[in-house]
Amino acid sequence: MALVSPNARVRRSPYHEATRAAGVTSVEIYNRMEMPTGYGDPEAEYWRLIEGAALWDVACERQVQIAGPDAARLAQILAPRDLARCPVGQGRYVALCDHEGVLINDPVLLKLAPDRFWLSIADADIWLWARAIAAERRLDVVIDEPDVSPLAVQGPKAEAVVASLFGDWVRELHRFAFRETRLAGISLVVARSGWSKQGGFELYLLDGSKATALWEMVMEAGGPFGIGPGSPNDVERIESGLLAFGCDTDAGTNPFEVRLGRFVDLDVPDDTIGIAALRRIATVGPVRQQLGVMLAEEAPRERAVGRFAVLAGGERIGTTTELVWSWRLQRTIGLALVDAAAVPGSAVEVRLDAGSFAGSLRELPFL
Amino acid sequence: MALVSPNARVRRSPYHEATRAAGVTSVEIYNRMEMPTGYGDPEAEYWRLIEGAALWDVACERQVQIAGPDAARLAQILAPRDLARCPVGQGRYVALCDHEGVLINDPVLLKLAPDRFWLSIADADIWLWARAIAAERRLDVVIDEPDVSPLAVQGPKAEAVVASLFGDWVRELHRFAFRETRLAGISLVVARSGWSKQGGFELYLLDGSKATALWEMVMEAGGPFGIGPGSPNDVERIESGLLAFGCDTDAGTNPFEVRLGRFVDLDVPDDTIGIAALRRIATVGPVRQQLGVMLAEEAPRERAVGRFAVLAGGERIGTTTELVWSWRLQRTIGLALVDAAAVPGSAVEVRLDAGSFAGSLRELPFL
Repeated sequence: MALVSPNARVRRSPYHEATRAAGVTSVEIYNRMEMPTGYGDPEAEYWRLIEGAALWDVACERQVQIAGPDAARLAQILAPRDLARCPVGQGRYVALCDHEGVLINDPVLLKLAPDRFWLSIADADIWLWARAIAAERRLDVVIDEPDVSPLAVQGPKAEAVVASLFGDWVRELHRFAFRETRLAGISLVVARSGWSKQGGFELYLLDGSKATALWEMVMEAGGPFGIGPGSPNDVERIESGLLAFGCDTDAGTNPFEVRLGRFVDLDVPDDTIGIAALRRIATVGPVRQQLGVMLAEEAPRERAVGRFAVLAGGERIGTTTELVWSWRLQRTIGLALVDAAAVPGSAVEVRLDAGSFAGSLRELPFL
Repeated sequence: MALVSPNARVRRSPYHEATRAAGVTSVEIYNRMEMPTGYGDPEAEYWRLIEGAALWDVACERQVQIAGPDAARLAQILAPRDLARCPVGQGRYVALCDHEGVLINDPVLLKLAPDRFWLSIADADIWLWARAIAAERRLDVVIDEPDVSPLAVQGPKAEAVVASLFGDWVRELHRFAFRETRLAGISLVVARSGWSKQGGFELYLLDGSKATALWEMVMEAGGPFGIGPGSPNDVERIESGLLAFGCDTDAGTNPFEVRLGRFVDLDVPDDTIGIAALRRIATVGPVRQQLGVMLAEEAPRERAVGRFAVLAGGERIGTTTELVWSWRLQRTIGLALVDAAAVPGSAVEVRLDAGSFAGSLRELPFL
């Protein structure tokens, strides 16, 4: 690992001081903002997420705000998912595609008002995309990035932590539902969401200058529940089969290849970007699929980022996208993009830098 | 500085092994690729660029390739600069703008063939922008990112190094002119370009698997000229007044504010994106301007990234975008975006984290 040098192009997270004080040891750059990725003890951070409560600085999950008279129309044009019946206060996980049906992002779309939406984006300049489409279609919208900085509380005890701060109403929120509220004078949006399957909430802070105060309040409220700092967790997300856009996808991936078909509505209006291509792909079926891969017991503990060949019967059938050591499964597991004909359970060989290892394809999620 | 953790979303540069062997100590993430930013001795790296020859891994300067029957038309739609008389083999520095005339990138556009162009981009997903525009206007083009990885040779001795490798014809290349060629079986494009004012070339490697071989050949050829590893140099670029997109610009910057007006042609076709807005701004004049700022002699050596207030007569007139210590000027200097009415030579106060310091506004470039 090399050091990241500071520069003005890459922004500090508003939680920078809080996470530095908490002992952050590594970061990624995501949407041109630093995102903490570790605090020095990966296994402890993992178990905190699985068994307790973890606090993640995910301010880098930036919001592309679409506001104005044509906001709802643009949202529907961008997202191949039926938004007609989406109420205010509800989010939807959407598979943004280009005109060829290629996945370009997988944000949560939050409907804040009939004429105001956020796309809570993965790492890509979706504001450029949204602005280009809006201007070319002469839609009456303003697209910008508001001062919104999510802080995630994840894990089985996250609900208790968040309820102790905001009240029991948070327990009633359905997945991706949210409410605007205040906490000790700080404006925020509380949503039941987050990039783990351990349950939890995201607190969309609406004023970056209050970031340290919010972090400290959550830490204090979480004390009795053993909360500690953490970060989006590759091990848990692979066990749970959550997609990492840009990691599991490439320049030609469509939603059906990576198990997002259930979030695509084929009966959206014809002016929805990519819908014609998606209907074609849905008819003939994708040529690749995302499956799990589990290395044999005798394989070493591996973390392998990047694409490594997956072979079946000596033939290359695809590549891994990420491999990790699963503490719960006590195996090296990962995700792979392989031929649509490949069958879960079948034996494969994975060619890593460290050598070639036997394994098998698995249904997702692992757990 | 924190460590950057590896992940599959951020790509290794093809020169990764070569730069690691050369002792890289810090990186930035740029266009989702690691870019070396230092080898442990910033002052030596600076003087090597000013007085000798430096080799930079700038593979992160990715190419958005536009190819097909409508490629020339799309290039002109995207770039508010007259490309009608641009010959094959010539590049043009272009100020890409959105429909409101806001700068969204400042690539070099290379015309490889009448129907094939590269946009050699600064850090932003211009492929999303170009694809959106092409599809919405139903243009017959293919937009992708080819396997092209620039390696820059910069400094007053760069020409001698590159001529010793390729022959004396490289000495005849004008600024931004280029030629496709081969070196020991490696295909590449040799261009007179690079992000410094010390002279130099960029070698656009056309096969990432040959990166280490190319690096080593240049290092060997440069030995007699004292070549050494380096990276895009903030000190030299500020002395020389070169723009750093995303660092010196914000979400509302137009080309006229940051001294790119001379690269904007107002008589391009009316369907060029942003041209109506740019004509308006050219008529009324921009409200801000980019100027140099030089701190007084007694101010400490500073490197300050990010925006710090600049005041004149107690009134805030703008912000710095980056400050560095100039070894040639023996002063802390920087760039600022200030009111259009501000006058070079006038006294200002700069409010840094380290304190408030006296200084003055300066014409650019400093040197």
